[in-house]
Amino acid sequence: MSKEYEAIIVGGGVIGGAIAYNLAKRGKKVLLLEKDRLASQASSAAAGMLAAQAELSGCGQLFPLAKESRRMFPFLEEEIKKVSGVDIQLVNKGTLKPALTEAEEIACKQSIEKYQEAGEQADWLTAEQAKKLEPNLSCAVRGAMYIKKDGHVSAPHLTRGFLYAAAVLGADIFEYEEVLSLQQQGGEITGVNTSKSSYLSPNVIIAGGAWSDKLLKETEAPLNTYPVKGECFSLLIQKPLLSYTIFSDGCYLVPKSGGRIIVGATVKQNTFDRTVTMKGIYSLMDKAKSLVPVIINAELEKAWAGIRPQTADALPYLGEHPALEGLFVATGHYRNGILLSPITGEVMADLVEKKTTGVDLTPFRLERNNMTSVGNGGSI
Amino acid sequence: MSKEYEAIIVGGGVIGGAIAYNLAKRGKKVLLLEKDRLASQASSAAAGMLAAQAELSGCGQLFPLAKESRRMFPFLEEEIKKVSGVDIQLVNKGTLKPALTEAEEIACKQSIEKYQEAGEQADWLTAEQAKKLEPNLSCAVRGAMYIKKDGHVSAPHLTRGFLYAAAVLGADIFEYEEVLSLQQQGGEITGVNTSKSSYLSPNVIIAGGAWSDKLLKETEAPLNTYPVKGECFSLLIQKPLLSYTIFSDGCYLVPKSGGRIIVGATVKQNTFDRTVTMKGIYSLMDKAKSLVPVIINAELEKAWAGIRPQTADALPYLGEHPALEGLFVATGHYRNGILLSPITGEVMADLVEKKTTGVDLTPFRLERNNMTSVGNGGSI
Amino acid sequence: MSKEYEAIIVGGGVIGGAIAYNLAKRGKKVLLLEKDRLASQASSAAAGMLAAQAELSGCGQLFPLAKESRRMFPFLEEEIKKVSGVDIQLVNKGTLKPALTEAEEIACKQSIEKYQEAGEQADWLTAEQAKKLEPNLSCAVRGAMYIKKDGHVSAPHLTRGFLYAAAVLGADIFEYEEVLSLQQQGGEITGVNTSKSSYLSPNVIIAGGAWSDKLLKETEAPLNTYPVKGECFSLLIQKPLLSYTIFSDGCYLVPKSGGRIIVGATVKQNTFDRTVTMKGIYSLMDKAKSLVPVIINAELEKAWAGIRPQTADALPYLGEHPALEGLFVATGHYRNGILLSPITGEVMADLVEKKTTGVDLTPFRLERNNMTSVGNGGSI
Amino acid sequence: MSKEYEAIIVGGGVIGGAIAYNLAKRGKKVLLLEKDRLASQASSAAAGMLAAQAELSGCGQLFPLAKESRRMFPFLEEEIKKVSGVDIQLVNKGTLKPALTEAEEIACKQSIEKYQEAGEQADWLTAEQAKKLEPNLSCAVRGAMYIKKDGHVSAPHLTRGFLYAAAVLGADIFEYEEVLSLQQQGGEITGVNTSKSSYLSPNVIIAGGAWSDKLLKETEAPLNTYPVKGECFSLLIQKPLLSYTIFSDGCYLVPKSGGRIIVGATVKQNTFDRTVTMKGIYSLMDKAKSLVPVIINAELEKAWAGIRPQTADALPYLGEHPALEGLFVATGHYRNGILLSPITGEVMADLVEKKTTGVDLTPFRLERNNMTSVGNGGSI
Repeated sequence: MSKEYEAIIVGGGVIGGAIAYNLAKRGKKVLLLEKDRLASQASSAAAGMLAAQAELSGCGQLFPLAKESRRMFPFLEEEIKKVSGVDIQLVNKGTLKPALTEAEEIACKQSIEKYQEAGEQADWLTAEQAKKLEPNLSCAVRGAMYIKKDGHVSAPHLTRGFLYAAAVLGADIFEYEEVLSLQQQGGEITGVNTSKSSYLSPNVIIAGGAWSDKLLKETEAPLNTYPVKGECFSLLIQKPLLSYTIFSDGCYLVPKSGGRIIVGATVKQNTFDRTVTMKGIYSLMDKAKSLVPVIINAELEKAWAGIRPQTADALPYLGEHPALEGLFVATGHYRNGILLSPITGEVMADLVEKKTTGVDLTPFRLERNNMTSVGNGGSI
Repeated sequence: MSKEYEAIIVGGGVIGGAIAYNLAKRGKKVLLLEKDRLASQASSAAAGMLAAQAELSGCGQLFPLAKESRRMFPFLEEEIKKVSGVDIQLVNKGTLKPALTEAEEIACKQSIEKYQEAGEQADWLTAEQAKKLEPNLSCAVRGAMYIKKDGHVSAPHLTRGFLYAAAVLGADIFEYEEVLSLQQQGGEITGVNTSKSSYLSPNVIIAGGAWSDKLLKETEAPLNTYPVKGECFSLLIQKPLLSYTIFSDGCYLVPKSGGRIIVGATVKQNTFDRTVTMKGIYSLMDKAKSLVPVIINAELEKAWAGIRPQTADALPYLGEHPALEGLFVATGHYRNGILLSPITGEVMADLVEKKTTGVDLTPFRLERNNMTSVGNGGSI
Repeated sequence: MSKEYEAIIVGGGVIGGAIAYNLAKRGKKVLLLEKDRLASQASSAAAGMLAAQAELSGCGQLFPLAKESRRMFPFLEEEIKKVSGVDIQLVNKGTLKPALTEAEEIACKQSIEKYQEAGEQADWLTAEQAKKLEPNLSCAVRGAMYIKKDGHVSAPHLTRGFLYAAAVLGADIFEYEEVLSLQQQGGEITGVNTSKSSYLSPNVIIAGGAWSDKLLKETEAPLNTYPVKGECFSLLIQKPLLSYTIFSDGCYLVPKSGGRIIVGATVKQNTFDRTVTMKGIYSLMDKAKSLVPVIINAELEKAWAGIRPQTADALPYLGEHPALEGLFVATGHYRNGILLSPITGEVMADLVEKKTTGVDLTPFRLERNNMTSVGNGGSI
Repeated sequence: MSKEYEAIIVGGGVIGGAIAYNLAKRGKKVLLLEKDRLASQASSAAAGMLAAQAELSGCGQLFPLAKESRRMFPFLEEEIKKVSGVDIQLVNKGTLKPALTEAEEIACKQSIEKYQEAGEQADWLTAEQAKKLEPNLSCAVRGAMYIKKDGHVSAPHLTRGFLYAAAVLGADIFEYEEVLSLQQQGGEITGVNTSKSSYLSPNVIIAGGAWSDKLLKETEAPLNTYPVKGECFSLLIQKPLLSYTIFSDGCYLVPKSGGRIIVGATVKQNTFDRTVTMKGIYSLMDKAKSLVPVIINAELEKAWAGIRPQTADALPYLGEHPALEGLFVATGHYRNGILLSPITGEVMADLVEKKTTGVDLTPFRLERNNMTSVGNGGSI
């Protein structure tokens, strides 16, 4: 097997998979390297919400990217199914963000105003209207923001779909092979050295999630990222109990097809520890039952955790390294990795091909790294 | 909750689910009772082949039913997805039945002849032609029968889809509730007694797979069925390795979407023991690698077993009990439960509604129980 | 293989295992039949407390049996290890029963008084004394009953140990073989009919836990039992956090060796449903953290449930059937099956051998079945 | 929490655990750091053989260490049980090494001669004698080497026991915290930098198994190690089937307590890939049934793989780094990590304490790294 590639992707999660898929689709000879199992970290742990509006409570710098990426899912669903046979399980019924307190009500209404000003759909429902749409909502709900376009997919299926589709299109994908260092010459990337071998390529894309900065530590533009644990659990039901995603501060409930509800996610900063704590699950249960009381009767299926890559300014890194030509970075998607994967795959492939991208990537350049503090990533 | 129903179904597998779904779709008030977990036996263990032709090597009494049922899957896929959100993962690429020996070649060609006489597609491929379609076939293959219409679905998803769709349409579905005895009065069924309660209904349908005859032991028409264990295992691959179902005597390989291959199934008669033996898996591996040698490099995912209901004459029971009006039986589908579930659901709903069915059910009546021997069910 | 046995035991849990072990040890030719997997129900779900005093809050009719059984464990541990190699993981550090309310304090002190009058150890510790023994107890604890002799074992290891030791000593043990009916002649038991075969024996012992009464429904002395679900979960810790079993109304915490803590158990009457509900786990977590607040930081390992056999008068059945010679019953142990298994194995072997037993079995005879109500089993 | 320690151990497997336990026992303030879960790699994958003689077929340089370590287990068993409550499940029944071919017979007899010359027990059994000891051996066996002292333990329990005992004795043990680089000053180690923090210590011991050399890549004495995958599977039996460990070239069968048999292990060099292949399991089954034919009827429980650290000269590294005072290495134990863990824990603690050790560590020094080739580690 030849050891030269047109592009090498480091990381076998949803972002790495999306990039590999886009490059393979464009006919590139691609290698993807994953240090552990494919899709073994945050990509499989995610609940799969496409919460472009519910999560980004306003119209900040990430919103245009999020909105465009959300728009791409119906096409992607068809494409991935056709190429790989995998159903990414897109559900497009919309999201309710209920307000249990006056403060939450005010925040929702402010968001709605901003979205409406920007020409985006977002409506306030009275308690009565909300309960009509979703009868199992708590009686304590004061009303809810209704977002029609925020759907969800199955995160493990999306990730597996990208990766398997890339393989179908010719990409080489190796598990359990860790990239230990980068090869460079005269300011240009030339390849990677792994735990097992070496590979040559003029393009290397780091898409290693919370582990991305290990490889960039010694470069002139280290990343300013930190890991954030999120714990989740799932419930099984025998009859439909929810139709909409219920999104709230500190807790969301995502009704998956066939009777599974995913409840997430805690936020614990600066740890790679993936253990699920009693504290995390107890606090999620507490919040979930305050939103949808009858959920307490559902069957507890399982609990898990994932480590998400957050950045100091709460924006992902999407760009070329300022000091190493051919070295690209795509990480820092935090809670929006699933949502942003289609657009990330596309713009990173554009960058590798030196094409202009349809979206403005200025806010996501690596050069912005004149940050000082870590951990104040704000409300995202 | 009312304890009267228009129909009570005993058994929460794919057959029970299909019947519940059809009755619920027709507006009936339905109760389904399962002694253990839903879909916990053969329905989830199956590889999901729709092998109307590959399995039934000729045009016997079961073939019209099998053919009609196979035809129903594309419509069912859409319907189940719409009602329940579950993708049954229908793949319609066709099946190859390779011949490794002269005897197998002769048998294949005889089958082909029969199918062609009956107007069914079935073609003989030379070794070269077969290898062109499926390059990873063994060089020892002498040729293969090619059946275009025998596809496959995901058996657990189909079963879950039927059951959840039935629940969406209003059916009551209770797990862990065993029917201990039937209630009857004057030759008519009136209800059932369970491990927890009693329920009334003029229609009771026994769809309990290999466990069905327990309830009929004391009636005038006991079933002549016996349990047959089948062991399977699954493999994971990172790149496509097979396109077609490879079907052979004693072993089949079913390439599922996203990189899973299911290899099945052993045949051990007259046991309810669901343990997976080293012997079973070793013998399947042995056969599988003789068909597709490179498969040996795939990752072993897991192994499991299921207990299938076989009958003395190798035909299922689909009919009303001769001595108890309102008591229906649908079992004995052996290795064809997944394939036959759509048509079974439909004809059983017809029987309950006293409608005429589109297919001739005479061969499947319970009255044929003047059988003498058990276990000579033949080659099916 | 011969199909005649000196004794047939129906049920492969801890009670069936203990009886099989005792009979095999006495040289009997024994058959044990289990309808599913060995140790697949309550026996493996139990936390393994030997709470002769903590559970039986006084000196009722069950106490002499419980006390004698508890005394047997150190000998049993050695014996089982020697015969089967299995370590039952006996821990004998004692139990604390903390009082969080005045009512609990009064109840504890009354228990202590009764125990002391009867010559049993049981002491009241002040809050300070209790916190000194177990520093992680909640500051809200008002004091605690301290019981030195109530230890614990690993329930799955004890069950497996009995069963494997019985097999080593020659017992035949068959899984997945359900006893469907009893054979009898002239008021004497003669054997059993199973889902697969028939076996002859003048002695049949029903030890089927919550499923025992199915076989006795039609006899002159049906059992008056009902199933009670109990849910549990386990935690993992990296450093010791508890030394004693913490036993409280509605919740106990059992510190297992090597860093596992089992938290149990909910009580849901009259169901065979083994699903773990969010409600059950949430309520246990709630109670557990009120007893030992720091426990909330532990890792959540898993959750499970078991179905325990309770009786109308809260006493087990241990005796011969009044109308069928040679038919014995040992069930209804409710939450005390693990604790009572050694003595049950011994007395049932005595009954089969027509020996006099060392303990008075009068309260546990089947003949007491002139009960009227079900479900008022009281506080046990 | 203070961030200064007397010793920092990198690696949470059996070797790291043994060292932490020994140092904690000697009153040292110890920190153990593990990049993933404790005991998640080779330590839990091992079958736990203490094959000082069966594995090391002669009296080479490793034998004195192996023999001394094997001798330590009975004491260790007691100690670990007392401190941590964990039973390491030591079984001391001996090992049979059957010869199926003439070449194997000759090799066995040569080994026996060497052992006897060295005053070690090792006897040749004729086929008849061997079958008398172990009736289920294949009739094709020509005889067997019988080694009385080679027993086995439960590898996961031993590892967990060391680690939990160390924690009980005061060691800090952190999971999911990767050591990214070493701190040094003037030729002396001063601490480590992790994915989360930094810690100071004058002693750092690398015990990271196959991952150890990552941290030493840049030092003057890099390790000459490579990873070797080993695949295993386990069987369940209801009645005893084997008494002795059956050890053969390419396959061993270890009868664990309570009815589990572990069959191992394949040898695949130079890979960190932990996937279990069909090829690996098939080849083990093939060999296992040639040794003990009836084993084919056992239940297949599960399959797994581990990555073992091998060195160029097939001897472990046990010593101080030649260029960095206070940096110690203990790795390269290959298939003997479980066996060698007690002695390794002791001698490494001696080295840290600058005590003289009872065994000659010369062959295991890091300075021997003037090796040229990798992968010719010989027969060990």
